[in-house]
Amino acid sequence: MAGRQGMSECSSALTICPYLLICHDIFSTFAPPMQQYLDTSNSPPVTRLLARMIVNTRYEDLSPVTVKAAELALYDWVGCAMVSGQTEKAAKMARVAAAEGAQGGALVFADGKRTSPHWAAFANGASHAVELDDVHMASIIHGGIVICPTALSVAEQSRASGKKLIEGLVVGFDVAYRIGEAIAKTHYLMWHSTGTVATFGAAAAAAKIMGLDEDQTCWALGNAASQAAGIWEYLKFGDDTKLLHSGKAAMNGLLAASLAREGFTGSDTGIEGERGFLATMSGSSNPAAVNWDAMTRDLGKKFKVDENGYKLHACCRHGHVSIDNALRLIQQHGIRADQVKAVRVQMNRNSCDTLGDSDPVSPYKAKFSLAFFMATCFLHRKVGMEAFTDDRLRDPAMRAFMKKVSYLENPEYTRNYPRLWTASLEVELQDGQVLSTQGDLPYGDPATELPIPLFEQKALDMMGSVVGADRARGLLAAMQQLPEVGDVSRIFDGYPYR
Amino acid sequence: MAGRQGMSECSSALTICPYLLICHDIFSTFAPPMQQYLDTSNSPPVTRLLARMIVNTRYEDLSPVTVKAAELALYDWVGCAMVSGQTEKAAKMARVAAAEGAQGGALVFADGKRTSPHWAAFANGASHAVELDDVHMASIIHGGIVICPTALSVAEQSRASGKKLIEGLVVGFDVAYRIGEAIAKTHYLMWHSTGTVATFGAAAAAAKIMGLDEDQTCWALGNAASQAAGIWEYLKFGDDTKLLHSGKAAMNGLLAASLAREGFTGSDTGIEGERGFLATMSGSSNPAAVNWDAMTRDLGKKFKVDENGYKLHACCRHGHVSIDNALRLIQQHGIRADQVKAVRVQMNRNSCDTLGDSDPVSPYKAKFSLAFFMATCFLHRKVGMEAFTDDRLRDPAMRAFMKKVSYLENPEYTRNYPRLWTASLEVELQDGQVLSTQGDLPYGDPATELPIPLFEQKALDMMGSVVGADRARGLLAAMQQLPEVGDVSRIFDGYPYR
Repeated sequence: MAGRQGMSECSSALTICPYLLICHDIFSTFAPPMQQYLDTSNSPPVTRLLARMIVNTRYEDLSPVTVKAAELALYDWVGCAMVSGQTEKAAKMARVAAAEGAQGGALVFADGKRTSPHWAAFANGASHAVELDDVHMASIIHGGIVICPTALSVAEQSRASGKKLIEGLVVGFDVAYRIGEAIAKTHYLMWHSTGTVATFGAAAAAAKIMGLDEDQTCWALGNAASQAAGIWEYLKFGDDTKLLHSGKAAMNGLLAASLAREGFTGSDTGIEGERGFLATMSGSSNPAAVNWDAMTRDLGKKFKVDENGYKLHACCRHGHVSIDNALRLIQQHGIRADQVKAVRVQMNRNSCDTLGDSDPVSPYKAKFSLAFFMATCFLHRKVGMEAFTDDRLRDPAMRAFMKKVSYLENPEYTRNYPRLWTASLEVELQDGQVLSTQGDLPYGDPATELPIPLFEQKALDMMGSVVGADRARGLLAAMQQLPEVGDVSRIFDGYPYR
Repeated sequence: MAGRQGMSECSSALTICPYLLICHDIFSTFAPPMQQYLDTSNSPPVTRLLARMIVNTRYEDLSPVTVKAAELALYDWVGCAMVSGQTEKAAKMARVAAAEGAQGGALVFADGKRTSPHWAAFANGASHAVELDDVHMASIIHGGIVICPTALSVAEQSRASGKKLIEGLVVGFDVAYRIGEAIAKTHYLMWHSTGTVATFGAAAAAAKIMGLDEDQTCWALGNAASQAAGIWEYLKFGDDTKLLHSGKAAMNGLLAASLAREGFTGSDTGIEGERGFLATMSGSSNPAAVNWDAMTRDLGKKFKVDENGYKLHACCRHGHVSIDNALRLIQQHGIRADQVKAVRVQMNRNSCDTLGDSDPVSPYKAKFSLAFFMATCFLHRKVGMEAFTDDRLRDPAMRAFMKKVSYLENPEYTRNYPRLWTASLEVELQDGQVLSTQGDLPYGDPATELPIPLFEQKALDMMGSVVGADRARGLLAAMQQLPEVGDVSRIFDGYPYR
């Protein structure tokens, strides 16, 4: 903080408008209502503590588990980014980015162009479009679609090594998820935390890869706080805004770091200060609503990227345990669809209510149909994006199998929900044999063991649908040996290989 | 709204994460606390009403007063932008913008480069740096530093006419100031409204100049709502963040319009909806806290740019009426400094408290010293930026004159404040003659008659300090005949004329 002392003369409301003191009066007028806002007078200096962690984190000190977690986060996201890039929503964002004619070495997955890191981060934020990206359950943040575009674009621009990219990813996810866990849950009522909180993650990732010092990193976090945005109103009609939130969080976080690199200052109490991010956007006046400990516990020792959650199946999460159950049983026993007489599922009440449509009329509706999921498992042995088409919906074999599927609520499962998402499966074969299994949480949930081969397959499927199977295998291999990559901008050389 | 009906199947919390229904559960869990947020169930459809006004406003229907107001807003801002562009803070932002290497015809005043409208709007948002820009008192928004950069950059890029630029300015100021007047004053407690509310003004100006239709304009406003940001925490140390707020509001509003032009949708209830801007960022749960009428009263008939306020003097506003008084008296009576025996001022309590430093030790402190202001008036006959230097502070003539200045509170003035900022002035000459005058509000306040020649002089001084007096006169003349300009990108041809 040395060097800031000289500014203490400005440390009053006067500095709002040195030439227009009316603001001073406004604050006086409103002093009493300030009480309704979060009391942060005893907050720890988390902006600085997080900045210090960002600066001090070194690849050499990371555990192999964390390194692998960062790799998985990257290749899972790259698959999402490539497939999302084929959507019209992503194309709209890419067209705005391309119109800039900006110069740089950062790849936009939607059009294969190279541009400045800011516009690449923005356009690649569209990686949410197919909604198969990661999520951190404790903070309700989709980290990958914000942290990965920023980290990759900065790393590509600076021709950073794979190790440096890993450092950026690790601190980026860590900062985003820590703040997301810490902020009052009431934040999520009005704010889309992937747009708001994840901005800090993008700033952290960019600051790390740029090599900013501790003060600069504080400024980046402070100016991330002043750019955090994203409200839920778009949900009413499902507007494209959702992708703007991730794209802008990525770009805004990066901009905060780019400015800090130029010496542009920001508040080093931007997160915890009395008019900082938490006080302003917690939606609560109760200091206990903020979990300060979540921001500092094991800081620099344990990294939140280890807790990242992934989605293996391209449908509503309420069906994921049942799909895992079915695919596991099918594989273990080599079950063919024509052997099956009946499929009986037990789930919690919420899942029953959500997945009860036994006759979905559209691919979108099919994403909420247990019967459709089960038929897909037994007939196609995978519930990827390719499962939700009109052809599949009309397929007589699918329709016939869907009639074999039934479900009911298990009250015990309902009691355990949402801590557990338990579901059980009973398959009765034509020969009278009955096979059964059960699961508590979907594969991909951080509390379960990650079935790495399944994630590799997901990434290969997604990337392969855009660049072909051979290229996809090469890309996956590169990202799975990221510490050996000397210049990450080479990984996607030639993309999209047209 | 036709064409959106087909999306009604998505109009539930499900659309947050079709694949991850946990969000649905989160919203259920938090339903009761929602009550603490603003009730907007009876709100008028202001997003659409504002969009309709934006689309329907035509230069031909504007009053001469409004056209002149737009011209003044522009040339006053251009002066601020040029002088601010010479500061190191602006240079930092301009360096980040320049590093993009983006292509376009929009001018950055800090470095004279042409770039894309987005980066020009961002960099020119630094026009707040010398704090001599406009303000709208009723909404507490500095409109010019957000609306003007956006409107000018889009107009330059599209080689729009002066009339089109005027249309953009008029609707931009109107939307920003209307929403600013409407939102609960509690907003300002935590949010810097120039960063938040003015985003809508930038979106409106850009949408108008781009020629977006009503639906697209709604989308632009909706996606402005999802980008509005800017918190006060930076005040603690007076960080550079303040300029980020105006720069990003300008860029964000423009981005919302650029996306809308590509068909990227946003909420057409983004301002008034139950999770819209006002509900989320009003800081109040009382529906009466929002002045809905302010958004719709005389919409499309009277324009808020007419109410813009300006600053003639480069110091604290509490001294402005006294400075106006002194300069008026000096001019009327041809008073020379050596004729003056004593200067006695009466002001409200707040002004006395703020301006009492009779021995300022730095140029910054001098901006809050009535004695310094009066000495400057009598010795230099202008209180511009050039007044606040170490040389002036050390000048024996200044120091000697400052000793002649006294002040006291007038309780009646205190009672009328802040409705009026009354101050009176009594000048006792060496020959015993006593001259006096009084004013209620500073020149530049929209309630006073605008002394146009003084504003012309201010603009000439500011622009002239960067481009020389001759160029400044040419530029001012062009902006004062803006309706005659066929291609606004030509106005600054060759800037900065090195």
